[in-house]
Amino acid sequence: MINNSTRGKLIVFEGPDGGGKSTQVKLLAEMLNDFGKKVITLREPGGTIIGEKVRDILLDSKFIEMATKTELLLFMAARAQLVEEVIIPALNEGTFVICDRFIMSTIAYQGIAGGEKIEDIKNIATLATNSLNPDITIVIDVPTEVGMKRVGSKKDRMENKGFDFHHKIREGYLMLAQETNNVFIVDGTASIENLNEKIMEITKRELF
Amino acid sequence: MINNSTRGKLIVFEGPDGGGKSTQVKLLAEMLNDFGKKVITLREPGGTIIGEKVRDILLDSKFIEMATKTELLLFMAARAQLVEEVIIPALNEGTFVICDRFIMSTIAYQGIAGGEKIEDIKNIATLATNSLNPDITIVIDVPTEVGMKRVGSKKDRMENKGFDFHHKIREGYLMLAQETNNVFIVDGTASIENLNEKIMEITKRELF
Repeated sequence: MINNSTRGKLIVFEGPDGGGKSTQVKLLAEMLNDFGKKVITLREPGGTIIGEKVRDILLDSKFIEMATKTELLLFMAARAQLVEEVIIPALNEGTFVICDRFIMSTIAYQGIAGGEKIEDIKNIATLATNSLNPDITIVIDVPTEVGMKRVGSKKDRMENKGFDFHHKIREGYLMLAQETNNVFIVDGTASIENLNEKIMEITKRELF
Repeated sequence: MINNSTRGKLIVFEGPDGGGKSTQVKLLAEMLNDFGKKVITLREPGGTIIGEKVRDILLDSKFIEMATKTELLLFMAARAQLVEEVIIPALNEGTFVICDRFIMSTIAYQGIAGGEKIEDIKNIATLATNSLNPDITIVIDVPTEVGMKRVGSKKDRMENKGFDFHHKIREGYLMLAQETNNVFIVDGTASIENLNEKIMEITKRELF
């Protein structure tokens, strides 16, 4: 369905909590705007009315009984809606879509840290996204101690899972970044400005 | 994990809307109770606090924009939670679990009528349920006109999908019943008492 010549680009930000993804999403969107690009920014889970309802369930810290498989399927449900309702139509009209988390988050959180099979997650993702893959993925890497400290004490259900869980996630991202195409690791301990500069450089080199 | 000698049984009711499933679930539960069995009854989607939240999203008739893939994944998410939190523990302690809808509903509604690949749905179901299959499935068959008339005008989002959709579902169930093990079709136009008698006869023959 996507016409490649005028198709927009899907830029995904990934990495452990506390890496500064949302700040960098905002800054990149502003700079792409300055370059005359049409841009939308999205966050996962969410970005649609249905997806935000699913988000409320996923992040509610009272649902400690939630099974990892349930988590995985809820994230994918929100993602399926986001892809069909927002991302595909935006790409088709030439828009740059910047998304805070995507499939790699499910592989890191519910797969590598949560214990579900990575192959199963990839298969479900293929269905949920209609085989859509990001044009580039920026992984903002941050040491677990730094990331957890930045998140602070006001944690949601996912952020609340403890040091070992989050350490596995960081290691997972570094591993996934090696084996996946078009993934770029950047240093989340750099200053906001330096990080933005680096991300803009990658974006221009890869997508302009 | 399940010890077969003392394991409970999973009895699933399936079929088009308006077949009288919830009435028959209740009657079978009462009769099994009279036979001294421990019984719980569940409905899908739902049956857990998390699952009921997912149910609210799925059946909300204002969400006309919901993608079929989203629907499929939300049903599976609620099911994953139900299996892990309720069904497996109940079966392990020897309880008879009667469930109003299970995997076959997703195959009929989102697969046969909704157009998603049946193979994909089966694979996701294997993950969501940890490969749990019903000991018996009772399909209450009812002609589409009769089922829709019984549901009446107070419809939820799934019931609201029109005659052709529901007709495909009925045909789908009849097809699935042929190719699946331990599935028994009963006539939903029979009287409540006759239907209950027939279902009890099947249950005793197959599971006692």
